[in-house]
Amino acid sequence: MGIRISGTGSYIPSSVEKNADFKEHQFLNTDGSEFQQENNVIIEKFKAITGIGERRYADHQLTSSDLAVLAAEKAITNAGIDPETIDYIILAHNFGDVKHGTIQSDLLPCLASRVKHSLRIRNPKCVAYDILFGCPGWVEGVIQAQAFIKSGIAKRCLVIGSETLSRVVDKHDRDSMIYSDGAGATIIEASEEDDGILSHETASFTYDEAYYLFFGKSNNQDLCPDTRYIKMDGRKIYEFALKHVPLAMKTCLDNSGCDIKDVKKIFIHQANEKMDEAILKRFYRLYKTEIPDGIMPMSIHKFGNSSVATVPTLFDLVKNGQLKGHELRKGDIIMFASVGAGMHINAITYKY
Amino acid sequence: MGIRISGTGSYIPSSVEKNADFKEHQFLNTDGSEFQQENNVIIEKFKAITGIGERRYADHQLTSSDLAVLAAEKAITNAGIDPETIDYIILAHNFGDVKHGTIQSDLLPCLASRVKHSLRIRNPKCVAYDILFGCPGWVEGVIQAQAFIKSGIAKRCLVIGSETLSRVVDKHDRDSMIYSDGAGATIIEASEEDDGILSHETASFTYDEAYYLFFGKSNNQDLCPDTRYIKMDGRKIYEFALKHVPLAMKTCLDNSGCDIKDVKKIFIHQANEKMDEAILKRFYRLYKTEIPDGIMPMSIHKFGNSSVATVPTLFDLVKNGQLKGHELRKGDIIMFASVGAGMHINAITYKY
Repeated sequence: MGIRISGTGSYIPSSVEKNADFKEHQFLNTDGSEFQQENNVIIEKFKAITGIGERRYADHQLTSSDLAVLAAEKAITNAGIDPETIDYIILAHNFGDVKHGTIQSDLLPCLASRVKHSLRIRNPKCVAYDILFGCPGWVEGVIQAQAFIKSGIAKRCLVIGSETLSRVVDKHDRDSMIYSDGAGATIIEASEEDDGILSHETASFTYDEAYYLFFGKSNNQDLCPDTRYIKMDGRKIYEFALKHVPLAMKTCLDNSGCDIKDVKKIFIHQANEKMDEAILKRFYRLYKTEIPDGIMPMSIHKFGNSSVATVPTLFDLVKNGQLKGHELRKGDIIMFASVGAGMHINAITYKY
Repeated sequence: MGIRISGTGSYIPSSVEKNADFKEHQFLNTDGSEFQQENNVIIEKFKAITGIGERRYADHQLTSSDLAVLAAEKAITNAGIDPETIDYIILAHNFGDVKHGTIQSDLLPCLASRVKHSLRIRNPKCVAYDILFGCPGWVEGVIQAQAFIKSGIAKRCLVIGSETLSRVVDKHDRDSMIYSDGAGATIIEASEEDDGILSHETASFTYDEAYYLFFGKSNNQDLCPDTRYIKMDGRKIYEFALKHVPLAMKTCLDNSGCDIKDVKKIFIHQANEKMDEAILKRFYRLYKTEIPDGIMPMSIHKFGNSSVATVPTLFDLVKNGQLKGHELRKGDIIMFASVGAGMHINAITYKY
């Protein structure tokens, strides 16, 4: 018996925020001082490193749980299942529902309850909870679903990653250009065949790393210091990710029994293009193997970093033939990998 | 093999907020109108229904994750384990870290990461995540820990419930008197003996019930409508709980194979004394059995409703002989049960 993804769906907001839309922003250093460079130069440099040319922002009337519902509906349809047969709704996010123009995270009730409510599922045995695990939240949700299925308390789970990072950005921080909104959903269930999840690996590095991503005040020191935004120490995260993500991926792949040469696609969290390329390079270097062409599909150029949503939306795109030059065939060995706030890292080896 | 609680710890804040401390509050109806009654009368009526005479508020410099650390340290000591051997830290809460005097929930990084950081645990294989599941969050965390142990991905888990509801109350709402702060922690692990968790039951009612507890504006209509607080429809919750909690408890107990007469203690979420008594009455009525004396220890009179923290702190108190007239003996059959925002219900039958 395997445990596999039987359906996928994603919601990518239609509103495009281009790099040019940041031209008039007043970017400041963390100490409040101005940059020597023009915004044009800052934006070009940003694009060269992250690969991000544009990103998506959710419509003002939608919240993160609304995005989750839109993605979940597609995953349910794609799997062709009766929603009343879902045993768990596991929703990964990081900031709850933040209404446009407000600063509070609305977590009451938990977002999974809202999603179940909106999906009009009646079955009380369908347990709906939220997991907070940084950007790797969706991957971790899949690992938890697998545990529930293995332990016999579930047969079918809906695992969603949804985030509206546009609602928690500091406009005076260059890093605000990274963040995006979106949602990806998947149905996870037991399979008769010997496919699906072959191995997984999770690690939480908190001793020195817990606050590499944090909630902090604006770079504009005239703004209320009590109002906080998503903040990161990009340099430390970059070095951390390069050191630890390839090793976690290797442990995961080795535990699956698969050979590096079997791997057909790697779906990695879309955090930063240069960082993802460097992780890939180090991962293959651990096996003293050349990187195959087209192994790592990327969506960051147009969709930015939507945290928990990047991996499931990217997988959905490729699965549906919507990412040029990428396709999946039955039996392909693929990997999912993520890294983010916590600092958490996880990976899954998967037989498609 | 059983799965059992091998250690407990709790942190109950030292600052006592008495009912008399609410005498000067301006309580209003949801439409902003004033009550006909004096505050003295409102407070007496409140006490008669909820049983709450006083509650605890966390010191201003502490947040929910700080409370969680203080409880976790005690649970680790009580279990006599090396913290580096913990495979999961599962932290249940509902509002994240809300600093005193501010209105934002700080969820970045997740609170379990903060706790692991503060406990100075180095082992990256110790996975630290948060679960949002309303007041039943700690009970659900124990159920998840059990799934991880059963599925072979964990041997030992630290499950914590921590909350600072005092930071999200509307002072113009009578219900603000219910809420309290606190944290309870437990070590869950495999046992050689045939004891521990015998059965569990979870249900999420969201079709009509999702927003019985919600995040809403102050009853004082002069305050900013964008600033929101914990709000509840007490009447609907009361009716809901009476209808569904006894049935969930019965399913749970019946699945354990134990007889109602074997049950020695029921640790129920401390939401409201009259409601808990009514739940107990209906539960025993389902078995056409008299309620035994002293079956239901209560801590609400002095500690109020601290959400996810009530069940583990109450269990810790009784286990340590700190609640007069209550004690536990090896082999005793006990139950945990909870109900709250979502609306979620859960229960565990447990052999002590």
